[in-house]
Amino acid sequence: MSRFFSEKYLDLEPYTPGEQPRDTLKLKLNTNESPYPPAPGVTEAVAEASRKLNLYSDPECRELRKALAENLNIHEEELIMANGSDDVLNFAFQAFCDDHIPAVFPDITYGFYPVFAQVNRIPYREIPLRDDLTLDPKAYDHAAATIFIANPNAPTGIALGRKQIEEIVKHNPYNVVVVDEAYVDFGGESCIPLIREHDNLLVIRTFSKSRSLAGGRLGFGAGQEELIRDLNSIRYSTNPYNVNSMTAAAGKACLKQDAYNLENCRRIMETREETADRLRAMGFEMTESSANFLFVRHEKLPDDTLYQRLRKRGILIRRFGRERIRDYSRITIGTPEQMRQLLQAIQTILEEKA
Amino acid sequence: MSRFFSEKYLDLEPYTPGEQPRDTLKLKLNTNESPYPPAPGVTEAVAEASRKLNLYSDPECRELRKALAENLNIHEEELIMANGSDDVLNFAFQAFCDDHIPAVFPDITYGFYPVFAQVNRIPYREIPLRDDLTLDPKAYDHAAATIFIANPNAPTGIALGRKQIEEIVKHNPYNVVVVDEAYVDFGGESCIPLIREHDNLLVIRTFSKSRSLAGGRLGFGAGQEELIRDLNSIRYSTNPYNVNSMTAAAGKACLKQDAYNLENCRRIMETREETADRLRAMGFEMTESSANFLFVRHEKLPDDTLYQRLRKRGILIRRFGRERIRDYSRITIGTPEQMRQLLQAIQTILEEKA
Repeated sequence: MSRFFSEKYLDLEPYTPGEQPRDTLKLKLNTNESPYPPAPGVTEAVAEASRKLNLYSDPECRELRKALAENLNIHEEELIMANGSDDVLNFAFQAFCDDHIPAVFPDITYGFYPVFAQVNRIPYREIPLRDDLTLDPKAYDHAAATIFIANPNAPTGIALGRKQIEEIVKHNPYNVVVVDEAYVDFGGESCIPLIREHDNLLVIRTFSKSRSLAGGRLGFGAGQEELIRDLNSIRYSTNPYNVNSMTAAAGKACLKQDAYNLENCRRIMETREETADRLRAMGFEMTESSANFLFVRHEKLPDDTLYQRLRKRGILIRRFGRERIRDYSRITIGTPEQMRQLLQAIQTILEEKA
Repeated sequence: MSRFFSEKYLDLEPYTPGEQPRDTLKLKLNTNESPYPPAPGVTEAVAEASRKLNLYSDPECRELRKALAENLNIHEEELIMANGSDDVLNFAFQAFCDDHIPAVFPDITYGFYPVFAQVNRIPYREIPLRDDLTLDPKAYDHAAATIFIANPNAPTGIALGRKQIEEIVKHNPYNVVVVDEAYVDFGGESCIPLIREHDNLLVIRTFSKSRSLAGGRLGFGAGQEELIRDLNSIRYSTNPYNVNSMTAAAGKACLKQDAYNLENCRRIMETREETADRLRAMGFEMTESSANFLFVRHEKLPDDTLYQRLRKRGILIRRFGRERIRDYSRITIGTPEQMRQLLQAIQTILEEKA
C-alpha cells in the first residue's frame, strides 16, 4: 500500500478470482468456464469489428441490445449491457444501496458481494443459509435492504424456483431485489419474465458461462426502464464505453447461433448428471446442482485434501476456505472426456487413501 | 429515475460522450478518433483470441503488460491495464481521494473529472486556466489535494512541458499528481520517464487515439509499484477481468507494429499544422494544439454557429456549452482529404455569411 491510499479502504479485501495458473495443467476445472468454444460466426464477426477499432464503440450498444431484447422477448429499454455481470452488480450496489439502505445476501454465495459492498462503503449483512445449504425465502421478508441473490446460488449450485423468488420480491416492495442468474441456463428458472410485473426486480445475467464468452466480458441487466436508467446513470458516470466493439460483435454473433449454446448447455447438464452419479457411487455427498459445476465433499477427503491431491495430478478445482463449507470442493463440468479423466484421478486418490 | 435510486446521487450529472449519431454523416470529427485503421496484425491476433473466448481473460494481463513495459522501458509492476483510460481515472479518484483529500483540476479540461468526483462523492475544486486558456503551474503549489491534469489539455490541446509538470509534482509531495496523457503522442512530452523519481506521480495513457484502438477500450496507468498496487486493490474489488482477451490481443499486436502508429501520429500532426494554417488564413483564432484536434473560434461564427452550419452539411464537430469557451469548437484532425472537405465547407459557410 502506498502512503497515498485513502484511509477509507484500509480494510478493503479485494476479490480473489479463481487461479489462472502459469504452469500447464492437464485440466482446469476451477472457474466454471464452458469446455465448448464460442458459437460459429463469432470469429468472423470479431475480425470484422477489429477493422474499425479506430472508431469508438457504441456506448448505447444499440444493435446488441436489439438482438438480445428479441432473444429474451423484452424491450431494448429494459436492458443494460456491461463489461461482464460483475460490472452490472457493481452498478447495482452503487445505485440502490447507501448508508441508509444496506445490502443483504446469503452467508454462502458469490464471494464478490461483500467486496462490492466494501469498495462502495455500503453496510451489509449476511443471512445464513439453512444447515443443508438451501436458502430460506422467508428469511428475506421485509429485509429493509437491497437484496442480492445468486440463483442458482454459487458455489452450491442450488436453485430457487421462480415462484419462490417472486415471493421475496413481493415481500420487499420498498427495495430492489437483484437476482444474479449467471448459471440459470443450466437448469434454473429465469425471473426475466417477471420484470414487467415488479418494478423492484433486477435480473443480472452473463454471456460467460452458457454462451462460452468468459474471455469476452459481456453481461447485462434486465428490469423496468426506470431501474435501467438509474444503472445507466452510474455507467455514464464511470465508463460509458464499458462494452468494446469486438465484444458487442461477439455477443450479436452468439445470439444468432443460440441453438448452439442451448445444445452445449444440454450437454453440460447431461455430463453433470452422469458425473454426479459416478461421484455418489464413490461415496461423495453433494448439493443438488442446477449449474455447470458440482459442490461435493467426501468423508475420507476432508478439508483441502481433494483439492491438493488433484492439483498434484495436474487437475485444478476450487475450494473456499470458509468454515461452513471447508470440506467442500467446487468442480466445473467439462466435456465427458475431461470428466472421465477427473473421475479416474479421484478413483486413484481414494484407493491410495484406503 | 426510479423510486429506488440512492439519494446520494440525486445531483449526479453523468458524462455526455460525443454524439454517435444514427444518421449517416459525411464526416465525423467530434470524438478525436484516429482516421487510420488499427495496425496490421490486429485482426489476426483478435481472430485468434476469439477462438478461446470460453476461457477467462488473464486478470493480470501478463503478456500485454510485458510487451508494454518493454515498449516504455519500465517494469511490468509499474503498469496497470484497464478498460480504457477512463477506467484508471475512476480507480485513481477512488484510491487517492476521499472526504479529506479533495480532487483539483482546471476549470476547462476533460469534462469527466467532475463526474468521477461526483459519482465517488469526492469534494473537488476547479482552478481557472489563465485568460489565454493556458495553465499556470504555480496555481497548483501545495494544493493539498489529488491533482488531475490532462497534458496536453482537452479541449484546448495546450501542453505543459515535462519540467513544468515535474514542478507541480515536486510542490505536492504529500499528494498524488495524476497526469492524463491521452493525447501526448501528438506532440506532448510524456512524464513516464519521471515515475522512478517521484512516488506521487501517476501517468495515465490510452491506446484509443494514437494507436487507433478507441473501439477496443485499452488504457493504462504507469507509476511506482505501490501506487499501482493501490489501483489494483480497487480493480480487484470492482472488475478484475476489465480487459477482455480480444482487447489484450489487439494491444499486443499494436505494440508489435508501433512504427505504424508513430507514422500515423506524424501524419496527423502534419495534417494538423496544414489545417491550422488554412484556418488562420480564413480568420480563425486557435489555441496552440499538441493533440489530434484543433480548438478554434471565428468572430463571424460565434456561439454554436459553426457547429450548426457544419452539421447541416453532414460534418460533425464538438462544441462545449461552457461560458468561457462558448465561441470555440473542437475539430478532430482526420486525413488530408477529410480536412480538405472540412475546409471547403467552412469556406462556403464564411461566404454565405458575408
